[in-house]
Amino acid sequence: MVIFGRGCFDQLEDILSAKRRQPTGGMVFLVDDIFEAGDFKKRLPLKNTDQLIWVNVDDEPKTSYVDQLTETVKVQFAQHPQRLPDGVIGIGGGSTMDLAKAVALMLTNPGSSVDYQGWDLIKNPAVYHVAVPTLSGTGAEVSRTTVLTGPEKKLGINSDHTVFDQMVLDPDLITGAPREQRFYTGMDCYIHCIESLTGTFLNSFSRSYGEKALELCRDVFLGKGPDQDDKLMMASYFGGMSIAYSQVGICHALSYGLSFVLGLHHGIGNSIAFDYLEEFYGPGVREFRRMLETQEIALPRNIVADLSAAQIEKMVDVAMILEPLWENALGPDWKKLMPRSRIRELYLRM
Amino acid sequence: MVIFGRGCFDQLEDILSAKRRQPTGGMVFLVDDIFEAGDFKKRLPLKNTDQLIWVNVDDEPKTSYVDQLTETVKVQFAQHPQRLPDGVIGIGGGSTMDLAKAVALMLTNPGSSVDYQGWDLIKNPAVYHVAVPTLSGTGAEVSRTTVLTGPEKKLGINSDHTVFDQMVLDPDLITGAPREQRFYTGMDCYIHCIESLTGTFLNSFSRSYGEKALELCRDVFLGKGPDQDDKLMMASYFGGMSIAYSQVGICHALSYGLSFVLGLHHGIGNSIAFDYLEEFYGPGVREFRRMLETQEIALPRNIVADLSAAQIEKMVDVAMILEPLWENALGPDWKKLMPRSRIRELYLRM
Repeated sequence: MVIFGRGCFDQLEDILSAKRRQPTGGMVFLVDDIFEAGDFKKRLPLKNTDQLIWVNVDDEPKTSYVDQLTETVKVQFAQHPQRLPDGVIGIGGGSTMDLAKAVALMLTNPGSSVDYQGWDLIKNPAVYHVAVPTLSGTGAEVSRTTVLTGPEKKLGINSDHTVFDQMVLDPDLITGAPREQRFYTGMDCYIHCIESLTGTFLNSFSRSYGEKALELCRDVFLGKGPDQDDKLMMASYFGGMSIAYSQVGICHALSYGLSFVLGLHHGIGNSIAFDYLEEFYGPGVREFRRMLETQEIALPRNIVADLSAAQIEKMVDVAMILEPLWENALGPDWKKLMPRSRIRELYLRM
Repeated sequence: MVIFGRGCFDQLEDILSAKRRQPTGGMVFLVDDIFEAGDFKKRLPLKNTDQLIWVNVDDEPKTSYVDQLTETVKVQFAQHPQRLPDGVIGIGGGSTMDLAKAVALMLTNPGSSVDYQGWDLIKNPAVYHVAVPTLSGTGAEVSRTTVLTGPEKKLGINSDHTVFDQMVLDPDLITGAPREQRFYTGMDCYIHCIESLTGTFLNSFSRSYGEKALELCRDVFLGKGPDQDDKLMMASYFGGMSIAYSQVGICHALSYGLSFVLGLHHGIGNSIAFDYLEEFYGPGVREFRRMLETQEIALPRNIVADLSAAQIEKMVDVAMILEPLWENALGPDWKKLMPRSRIRELYLRM
């Protein structure tokens, strides 16, 4: 289920009340700690059996952090009949929503989140979980993955159970985002669409969503019309929906390596990598540069200058794990077209 | 949940197996009786505790038919522990899907379906229900209404519980539809989009879906490109999604009257009415006429010639019940702009 509209966050209480087990139940709110200061926290519909956890997403979500958060929730609800909360609500950007998805899954699946990085490894349905995005572009509010950085790799927990049961899309909540963060997160959506629409794995479902998401991104980052926040929120949702039957490509693969070694957030990592991919995504990269100009954003440069050779090789390793992404972009013979040396060269230009 | 793709109908068995209560459970298949002859019925994933009901949709769905079908299901499952089937699967066009939605609702809500025509009158969640469209355009596979003709009025059962739990969108299934039926059903989507995008009640969610649905309709009915069935199926789905925060208008209101008195199916009723609405929807009506030409469709004319004055007045009555539609098109003062006499005049031209 999805609700959309300015002010619809105020409907969250009604939505949750239908899921509360009276009187012992409780909800877990995972909220970006950026909101710990300020008035927004007064709007959270907390009951006295609920658990509020401020999450820090200065780093991208790590499997160790997911395991720790899951344990914190288990301790709180250990005395409850079902030993589980009634729901997990993630309020924040893509990282916070990924944490919420991962915790909802790990509450009902044994072991560490590391064990589930991959495709369809989750066995049990998650606890009911709700997305409330306060940044738009990642599509995390609607996608069937939660991307985590583990000790060895950055890879999502991809499963039907990962998908949020409810989305609360309130454009008011993204209005206050810092300008650069808004841009880089939005570019996650834009670049995703360019990669998927030019890829080899695509059907009419994903094409329809992807084409409209792209158009909305253009309206937002090249235009000046009304309803920019509404459009950006819809672009993110459509971009996320388009993932169902499509795949990202070279830029996302490279971005995963940047995040793993440099700790860069996904959106800025995508943006940095994309600028060097004109030979693969020519019109998209040139349009992206017009968006940089229009939005007056200066991309970070020379970010690999201080890395060791081993760190560069690790980036190449992480990027090469994402086989479906390379194959989507370059076809089944991608390894011939894109040997380690060529991936390394791309990184060395950044 | 939605799955999309050529051949995805074959996944229906897997989807249902997860919902079957072993060993006493059973599913109800409501299938358009057009498929009673032919090979398609061999592909239905029937188990021996399931109930197969061929439904006839020569007439639009009536409340009396819904009540009768519901009783038939109740009798079959009277000996089961929960006295309910595990699910209801509607396979057919908009009318069949509406019947499936209505039966799924009426199995868990007491009384007659007449009692629930309106907005949010349903109290109990429906039985799990699945849509398998074999015609595209109505959006019935995704909308939160099921439109029924009762003794006094044609009006939907509008409720969150009406929405299908699962959609199986397989473009192969719409490939064999008769040319005129395909056109008129597709025009339901096209006209819906024109009405909602020019209406006063709309947000970015519905605008995004509606604009893309319109674009897909243009590709299908004015173009000659590949993937026409895939695009038409997506147009219908997007058109249905756009209903969430939008509303139809004058054409749908008039079409309801035509259906009630003349028994016309919704798509053809819309098409007949739309051709007389150039003063309200100029560019849309002119584009619609190009679609008629391109698809070589001859609209029925003089359809009200043999009606009595009382029948004409009844059409006006039925159309005027749809207050939100008129208000969406003409604003809160619609009654001044559109007195009975003007509605009557429009009907008399058809």
